[in-house]
Amino acid sequence: MSRPSPLSGFPELDPAERIVEQHFLDVLRETFESFGFASVQTRAAEPLGELLRKGEIDKEVYVLRRLQANPGEDPAAGELGLHFDLTVPFARYVLERSARLHFPFKRYQIQPVWRGERPQEGRYREFWQADVDIIGDGALAFHHDIEVAQVMVAALSRLPLPPLTLQLNNRRLIEGYYRGLGAGDVPAVMRAIDKIDKLAPEAVTALLTGDAGLNPAQAEACLALAAISGTDGDRVAAEVAALGVTDPLLDQGLAELVEVMTGAAALASPSVTVRADLRIARGLDYYTGTVYETRLAGLESLGSVCSGGRYDSLASDGRSSYPGVGISFGLSRTLLPLLSRGLLRASRSVPTCVLVALGSEADRPHSETVAAALRGRGIPVEVAPEPAKFGKQIRHADRRGIPFVWFPGAGPAPEAGHEVKDIRSGEQVAAHPDTWRPPAQDLRPRVIAEFPATA
Amino acid sequence: MSRPSPLSGFPELDPAERIVEQHFLDVLRETFESFGFASVQTRAAEPLGELLRKGEIDKEVYVLRRLQANPGEDPAAGELGLHFDLTVPFARYVLERSARLHFPFKRYQIQPVWRGERPQEGRYREFWQADVDIIGDGALAFHHDIEVAQVMVAALSRLPLPPLTLQLNNRRLIEGYYRGLGAGDVPAVMRAIDKIDKLAPEAVTALLTGDAGLNPAQAEACLALAAISGTDGDRVAAEVAALGVTDPLLDQGLAELVEVMTGAAALASPSVTVRADLRIARGLDYYTGTVYETRLAGLESLGSVCSGGRYDSLASDGRSSYPGVGISFGLSRTLLPLLSRGLLRASRSVPTCVLVALGSEADRPHSETVAAALRGRGIPVEVAPEPAKFGKQIRHADRRGIPFVWFPGAGPAPEAGHEVKDIRSGEQVAAHPDTWRPPAQDLRPRVIAEFPATA
Repeated sequence: MSRPSPLSGFPELDPAERIVEQHFLDVLRETFESFGFASVQTRAAEPLGELLRKGEIDKEVYVLRRLQANPGEDPAAGELGLHFDLTVPFARYVLERSARLHFPFKRYQIQPVWRGERPQEGRYREFWQADVDIIGDGALAFHHDIEVAQVMVAALSRLPLPPLTLQLNNRRLIEGYYRGLGAGDVPAVMRAIDKIDKLAPEAVTALLTGDAGLNPAQAEACLALAAISGTDGDRVAAEVAALGVTDPLLDQGLAELVEVMTGAAALASPSVTVRADLRIARGLDYYTGTVYETRLAGLESLGSVCSGGRYDSLASDGRSSYPGVGISFGLSRTLLPLLSRGLLRASRSVPTCVLVALGSEADRPHSETVAAALRGRGIPVEVAPEPAKFGKQIRHADRRGIPFVWFPGAGPAPEAGHEVKDIRSGEQVAAHPDTWRPPAQDLRPRVIAEFPATA
Repeated sequence: MSRPSPLSGFPELDPAERIVEQHFLDVLRETFESFGFASVQTRAAEPLGELLRKGEIDKEVYVLRRLQANPGEDPAAGELGLHFDLTVPFARYVLERSARLHFPFKRYQIQPVWRGERPQEGRYREFWQADVDIIGDGALAFHHDIEVAQVMVAALSRLPLPPLTLQLNNRRLIEGYYRGLGAGDVPAVMRAIDKIDKLAPEAVTALLTGDAGLNPAQAEACLALAAISGTDGDRVAAEVAALGVTDPLLDQGLAELVEVMTGAAALASPSVTVRADLRIARGLDYYTGTVYETRLAGLESLGSVCSGGRYDSLASDGRSSYPGVGISFGLSRTLLPLLSRGLLRASRSVPTCVLVALGSEADRPHSETVAAALRGRGIPVEVAPEPAKFGKQIRHADRRGIPFVWFPGAGPAPEAGHEVKDIRSGEQVAAHPDTWRPPAQDLRPRVIAEFPATA
């Protein structure tokens, strides 16, 4: 094999970068579990028909074929594809075992997904998502809309990320408003408003007065609603009320929006802002209430890195319908650009905290005994691979970022003059393998974030 | 969607089973890292040509195809397949970044792999493996053979598994022995001996005296070597010596075998036995020294659940060769049969330790405050989904295995008469959300193992 080159769209991490990713995974898991969300993992493959039924063929599904399929086998029968998100497999997982799950069922799911899209920054062919969803049997109370926002805000607040904004809106609010305004074709209005970020204002107005059939005053009122945003729920509500449109669905949506804002903001941190943004519609047809999007400061070009919403029917088996609410965090999409820009790094490239030095190959059992004693107390340790000069052994540790080198005493007795050196400061002290502890912040690799100050 | 059925060969776990799997993953990771092994994850897909180059086409590779491949695209160009093990991708990963890795490089890798084989117990189309490997640049010292055995024995010892035996042999030992015996076609001898478990003794003798061209005395001597096994290295060495064959390669292999046995046995536990088994050859051509296999008591039908060995060239880029030694633990292959037989289970199906009860929907903010206080001290908590009768809320907890139900006091003041009930014992005591702690064993779900006593 000559030296291989990376595969475009299939990013892989160096060991130090993987430590940062693992930290993200740990924080997500710990936070989700602290709210009682159960871990679910689904298989990578789904029947191709089920993947395509969702009308998401633009997702560029990867189809699987066994290299050694039997000659007589119908290649189309039972054809499988790799999942392109975690929602379709989760809906199927719930239907498959609905009789033995307890509802409302709260799960998190952190796995890779695959899409055959053209690769670019923040867009990959294999990438990780971290989803939280709550699904009910027949009905799902509104307060769960607040709960998923809270759990995701709590997780994002604990991650080393640039300042981010969770943007909220409510489909009932905008649909009720358009209806109250007298719009005949509400979906057409929504499609036009969804283009606000991409088109000039006159072009959006043209769509509203053209396809969507509004008069100029109605079009202006739609743009006025979309312009409303803010972190103060009462103020947002007052601004909507000031537009003078009335509709029961609008009232319900607005009340829900304010409730979710208040609930999520309670768990926000200096780096996480929660705001209403009445421009957010999220194109996907199945959202029916709350919708969520998220922007990272300085990385707005990535689009929304954490999105979701409420859907009245996440799954249905003909007899029962399962409403849900959930948010999906684009883990790779967020993390990889931060790594490639050097904004996040690990304090070392290995888990090892202590390298036990080796005087001669004959001393290896003695060094192993020291290593085992430290390891037995939870300290990640390895023994030097060869009995080189101590200077070389220290460089071995230094290149990997291992903070401590242990020099075993002369004899096998544990009290025989052990010393440990902090190779960053050069400080070397007497120590005993049964009692010495590294400072807490050196026990595991740390994640170091250096984000440029934002205006 | 009607109720879907499981896909044969693509096992999925219920939430409580997933908790057991997560425990396995945590123990493996923690142990591997305590020995300084770095985490690596590789992409799921490799160029198809590289997967097939290894001559493993009987592994039934899954080929990937983009559903929306461009019409003009050559379907064969750049074709990808899903990896069927973690060794091929790791070798490629190392070659790709050999200039920036530090050798010897120790990594662990825990990921799913895919093989289009006919599904049966212990054999799946999608399954998880946990590999540890150490790879050197140009050379790799022998003591790493002991190290990978140690780290795997340490991990297996900490897992809730039936008694298991790590079986060791050494390819140098058997090759040197056959050579010293005067065998002309050593690989043919090895192929015959590899069939000992499958064929009758006379059939193996026929292969040895037929294809392998040995005389009856030589054939008998080969079977005598294969019959040697034991946990005492010196005794095994004496039994081999007593066969009267001499060869320098045999001597080296035997010395290595005894060293690995001694090193690995030092970390074994009552449930993990380390023994030499001179029948083990492992068919794969690339092993050149130590070889490892593992059998589970009561699950011998699964074959070896943890296998590996030393290879003089794990990877090569034409200029440099990278020798390695590693072991792969068949995580799904081991865990899934234990789960399906009911030998392993979790103490509950959710991470939640405490359900905070809800007097009325208006009390939700108060119950949320209690939950946040407990959660802030690392206790997984959720609030009851609806203000049902307390008996119903207790049943909600009971069905999920949540051990504690918290009854918030009447008022918002924290001192206002909170009580917490252990729903297993029925004991209910006064408590304060800022200070109450569950017993340590109830904080997280526990894994309960019930293995039948073995003879």
